[in-house]
Amino acid sequence: MTQITQSIVAHGAKDLRIAVSEIETPGPGEVRIRMQRGGICGSDLHYYNHGGFGTVRLKEPMILGHEVAGIVEAVGPQVDLAPGSLVAVSPSRPCYTCRYCHEGLHNHCQNMRFYGSAMPFPHIQGAFRTHIIADARQCAPADGLTAGEAAMAEPLAVVLHAARRAGDLMGKRVLVTGCGPIGQLAVLVARAAGAAEVVATDMTPFTLDMAQQVGADRVHNVGTDPDALTYYAAGKGHFDVLFECSGVAAALATAVPAMRPGGEIMQLGLGGDMTLPVQAMTAKELSMRGSFRFHAEFFTAVDLMRTGRLTVAPLITQTLPLADAVAAFELASDRNRAIKTQIAF
Amino acid sequence: MTQITQSIVAHGAKDLRIAVSEIETPGPGEVRIRMQRGGICGSDLHYYNHGGFGTVRLKEPMILGHEVAGIVEAVGPQVDLAPGSLVAVSPSRPCYTCRYCHEGLHNHCQNMRFYGSAMPFPHIQGAFRTHIIADARQCAPADGLTAGEAAMAEPLAVVLHAARRAGDLMGKRVLVTGCGPIGQLAVLVARAAGAAEVVATDMTPFTLDMAQQVGADRVHNVGTDPDALTYYAAGKGHFDVLFECSGVAAALATAVPAMRPGGEIMQLGLGGDMTLPVQAMTAKELSMRGSFRFHAEFFTAVDLMRTGRLTVAPLITQTLPLADAVAAFELASDRNRAIKTQIAF
Amino acid sequence: MTQITQSIVAHGAKDLRIAVSEIETPGPGEVRIRMQRGGICGSDLHYYNHGGFGTVRLKEPMILGHEVAGIVEAVGPQVDLAPGSLVAVSPSRPCYTCRYCHEGLHNHCQNMRFYGSAMPFPHIQGAFRTHIIADARQCAPADGLTAGEAAMAEPLAVVLHAARRAGDLMGKRVLVTGCGPIGQLAVLVARAAGAAEVVATDMTPFTLDMAQQVGADRVHNVGTDPDALTYYAAGKGHFDVLFECSGVAAALATAVPAMRPGGEIMQLGLGGDMTLPVQAMTAKELSMRGSFRFHAEFFTAVDLMRTGRLTVAPLITQTLPLADAVAAFELASDRNRAIKTQIAF
Amino acid sequence: MTQITQSIVAHGAKDLRIAVSEIETPGPGEVRIRMQRGGICGSDLHYYNHGGFGTVRLKEPMILGHEVAGIVEAVGPQVDLAPGSLVAVSPSRPCYTCRYCHEGLHNHCQNMRFYGSAMPFPHIQGAFRTHIIADARQCAPADGLTAGEAAMAEPLAVVLHAARRAGDLMGKRVLVTGCGPIGQLAVLVARAAGAAEVVATDMTPFTLDMAQQVGADRVHNVGTDPDALTYYAAGKGHFDVLFECSGVAAALATAVPAMRPGGEIMQLGLGGDMTLPVQAMTAKELSMRGSFRFHAEFFTAVDLMRTGRLTVAPLITQTLPLADAVAAFELASDRNRAIKTQIAF
Repeated sequence: MTQITQSIVAHGAKDLRIAVSEIETPGPGEVRIRMQRGGICGSDLHYYNHGGFGTVRLKEPMILGHEVAGIVEAVGPQVDLAPGSLVAVSPSRPCYTCRYCHEGLHNHCQNMRFYGSAMPFPHIQGAFRTHIIADARQCAPADGLTAGEAAMAEPLAVVLHAARRAGDLMGKRVLVTGCGPIGQLAVLVARAAGAAEVVATDMTPFTLDMAQQVGADRVHNVGTDPDALTYYAAGKGHFDVLFECSGVAAALATAVPAMRPGGEIMQLGLGGDMTLPVQAMTAKELSMRGSFRFHAEFFTAVDLMRTGRLTVAPLITQTLPLADAVAAFELASDRNRAIKTQIAF
Repeated sequence: MTQITQSIVAHGAKDLRIAVSEIETPGPGEVRIRMQRGGICGSDLHYYNHGGFGTVRLKEPMILGHEVAGIVEAVGPQVDLAPGSLVAVSPSRPCYTCRYCHEGLHNHCQNMRFYGSAMPFPHIQGAFRTHIIADARQCAPADGLTAGEAAMAEPLAVVLHAARRAGDLMGKRVLVTGCGPIGQLAVLVARAAGAAEVVATDMTPFTLDMAQQVGADRVHNVGTDPDALTYYAAGKGHFDVLFECSGVAAALATAVPAMRPGGEIMQLGLGGDMTLPVQAMTAKELSMRGSFRFHAEFFTAVDLMRTGRLTVAPLITQTLPLADAVAAFELASDRNRAIKTQIAF
Repeated sequence: MTQITQSIVAHGAKDLRIAVSEIETPGPGEVRIRMQRGGICGSDLHYYNHGGFGTVRLKEPMILGHEVAGIVEAVGPQVDLAPGSLVAVSPSRPCYTCRYCHEGLHNHCQNMRFYGSAMPFPHIQGAFRTHIIADARQCAPADGLTAGEAAMAEPLAVVLHAARRAGDLMGKRVLVTGCGPIGQLAVLVARAAGAAEVVATDMTPFTLDMAQQVGADRVHNVGTDPDALTYYAAGKGHFDVLFECSGVAAALATAVPAMRPGGEIMQLGLGGDMTLPVQAMTAKELSMRGSFRFHAEFFTAVDLMRTGRLTVAPLITQTLPLADAVAAFELASDRNRAIKTQIAF
Repeated sequence: MTQITQSIVAHGAKDLRIAVSEIETPGPGEVRIRMQRGGICGSDLHYYNHGGFGTVRLKEPMILGHEVAGIVEAVGPQVDLAPGSLVAVSPSRPCYTCRYCHEGLHNHCQNMRFYGSAMPFPHIQGAFRTHIIADARQCAPADGLTAGEAAMAEPLAVVLHAARRAGDLMGKRVLVTGCGPIGQLAVLVARAAGAAEVVATDMTPFTLDMAQQVGADRVHNVGTDPDALTYYAAGKGHFDVLFECSGVAAALATAVPAMRPGGEIMQLGLGGDMTLPVQAMTAKELSMRGSFRFHAEFFTAVDLMRTGRLTVAPLITQTLPLADAVAAFELASDRNRAIKTQIAF
């Protein structure tokens, strides 16, 4: 009996289908993984809810998903991963030889094949499938973690990349605006990195409660209390670092007076054009630095979970079987109930 | 016969008057300087033309000026500057003891008394006077330079501060948007710092010609050719560093596609709120970093002019006597004729 | 009845005496502190045991001590510290106006008056006294801490300064060589800053046990197992950062093969000339960076203890009354029993 | 008639032979280059004069050479280099997929195949051959340069890598110890990067004259005047950056007092163990940072020569034909006559 692979394919807005294909054999340097868990990310939701975001639109059916972990099922030649072991699979697949790769800027590779992305055409097919062939070098051994935790390596790597760009957080005062999965992980990482104080804002009590649970010293609901950050503006400002995870201009603009001179704004949220108080940002010498994806940090992410330095389990709020994929996508969109929704394959 | 000091006082928009006062005697650690040259800066022009900028307004008469150099005329106790020597006088007078001073962020001092600024009230009186009492530690010995060159130390320090924040420019591709005095100095500094390529944009042929004269490899008139930077967008972008010296949102926004991933945008221009392509800035991991004033760089500026590493003389386009102060301010406002207009005291 | 101040004065090797003087009144910006605790540092021990170290020798009697905390007893004009409150007193007293202070390198001030230092002559008298007049700006409010903890702010600031220079430690593998007070604090700080792994070496079981207690994942006695670090040399090395706190050339030399390419060696230990494997350090592009004292980090240190991010209490192994000062100095020299010995005033 | 390739093979100390082999055809992504010029480097000289250096010894015959440039003679599929064009060929051939490559530390690749290196066994054969098959991605288009200049890209890249690690040199005071080819290029680069002052030391008048010719403001013969640097020790030191290019402990040790606090020592010279004044280095917070090879900087090097920012031609002191290879190696060893000796193929 031929084994088959099932995958979650987006054909357009609100049009998710399960496709089947034959199972493949890993070649040299490759492994076949029996997928266990896949986390639904904001970009997956954009494809599902709207067929894309900004100028990025689905032009052909595309398998979704890029936050995945599974069990090594078969290995090709020249691979030293043990069958049966759990691995987190990095979606970052740069060419390694373009000029950005030469300079170590792999996340800006000109030929990047990041799982589940409609930016290039043909689109790069994603990883929400029961079986996948991956390069061994994409796989981080994750035994000791649950498959769900291992599948959190991807968003955690996003935050570690931003934190690395933000520099030393030890003793710093950190603000996190936007408490979706990335914001929650920013709270977690800032605490683990020794921040003296971590404050988080959002507009949803559910997410703010979670932020407090994973380490925020104080949270503010800027929906009900839009002037909450005014308090922090005294003495030229309070926060050394802002992780902006909402992609909302107002979140960034109201945070500017609360930043102290020379502060770092790490921009993770993607939200189109923004009108910003650039004069104040200039006079305070704030740095607004974009942070996008990651590369080597994927392995650091797994490492930090395995050594127990970071505990991401509370952020996995729901796990649904593949058969309930549509329900999972609906649930993942609900910020009153879900932080990270995962699919069990 | 009592000697008197004459000073240029702004009473409001288009209301400039010469005031007189008695000459003072320097105390311990102080010097009296017989002023030689004072350069008119953009903020001076805002006070003169509009009575202020943004929320900063003249609320009482204020002596203008903060780009000055003169001859040491008398010294107080504990000063080792020789009478008769030329000095550039730094307008940066921090308190040295607030928390920002403790951290070496003197330019963000909570008690800064920067010459000729209406930000605090009472305003900080400026340095456009025939005689001034200054702390010896504000004075950089400048013998060997002309007084006009010495008075360029201040805007040059602004640019050196930004360049230091931008990091190593050796072999980098540099874009300068806005070719006023700060933009011209950015071209000069980028060339002197080993940039592989320097490109400048503005909307005035006069300023673009000057930019080319002081070292730009290529200039673009974005008034007549608004798409000039499109060419540089290929391959994810071309420039490593942008010195944004215009304060105009369109200048920054059109430069974003021309920046390569990981590029540094040094924001020097002050222009209020701006609508920016933050999504593209984030995905490219650009850093937009404000740069404001300077502190220790003032001495580096004088040093680099004295050793001949930087030649600022061509940027001094006019020098008018104190008696023609109003004419000087009018001329300084004309971007078709003036880069830096100075007053001879 | 006139109140008197008692102080601990070193007259030469093994010649410690209690001196008395009249109590003073604080002037503008000053406070008088009733000292509570003073920690004995390695340099104090050098003065006590050997009359100095290297070329630094006692040339006149000198009050020892620079790790102190006490209660505000009286305040001069323009001070907003409340009498009765606990403060940690920073020994860092730069001039604020020399060129290094201008550049924010206060710890390299050319006119530094660091408590209890025989480097300049006349020597700078120290802070082991029952009462001291200090500048308010030296004092970090420390209510909520014990006086003993507050007196740990100084060595903690030394380590925070080094950690800041080492950069982001999140997810890094950290080695600490030498488990005296500074090494112990390095273990503590590395853990709090999110290091993925902290390994410590020393030659004394007592100090290694403590290192494990405060957070080392693994410790090695390089006295009994000199090749312990060989294991970490595979694959070009293992550690990203080394805090070298022993001042012993062998500690540094044997760590070099265990460092991965591009690693950072923070040199805190002071130990004279060293013969080092510079060729290997060069080919691996290791950075060996000296770290000396601190300035603004003193306030961060108090902050991190007050917010509970760092717990230094276990490192205070003994507290002896002023009357037993000689016994305290003897005890502090014994690495089999003492990490940090403090004096209660 | 079959074309043949001639190559310069070291069989042991003072045993250099010309070998011949058949010419090869470039595969996909490859080019065949007709070599024009090859510069003799210090490591080539060590193989020639001593059969190796330190623990690195010739264990089999090895083609020497890694500073080369030539004409594209034939191209394989998927190559867009034009036959007939001049290219500089980078000897840096990392695996792109080990963990160091993942992190952008290509120069520390665990599987590096750097031309002409006896570090691994089998040795990596070098590039002193009349024809070579190279990957297109190793080739930097160099039309406009002479072949000799193009062959200087390699040592120039070594220095640019070190300069990038040293950070911004604008306005800095730079010392260069050791005026061999690397030291000369350090002088050249420091000047081009805007250093306020460049001082060089060596023990040979010939090399010191050249250093002055390419841009040193002052040179000192530390052979005849061993205390020359004492003058610079006043006020805690003078130099911000040291490029240590001699590999001699005395050069580094005597420079330490001349370095100002916080200074950067870039260690490029390879010279075995060194006894260093680590206590002074620590108290001054000097950073001694190894710098080894390069990767992406190779392309920057060619770029900076093509745009005329750097002029290396004066450093090529001799060019000898392949037939005189032995004479060329003898000449290259003579520091009274040669800076860079090249072979014409």
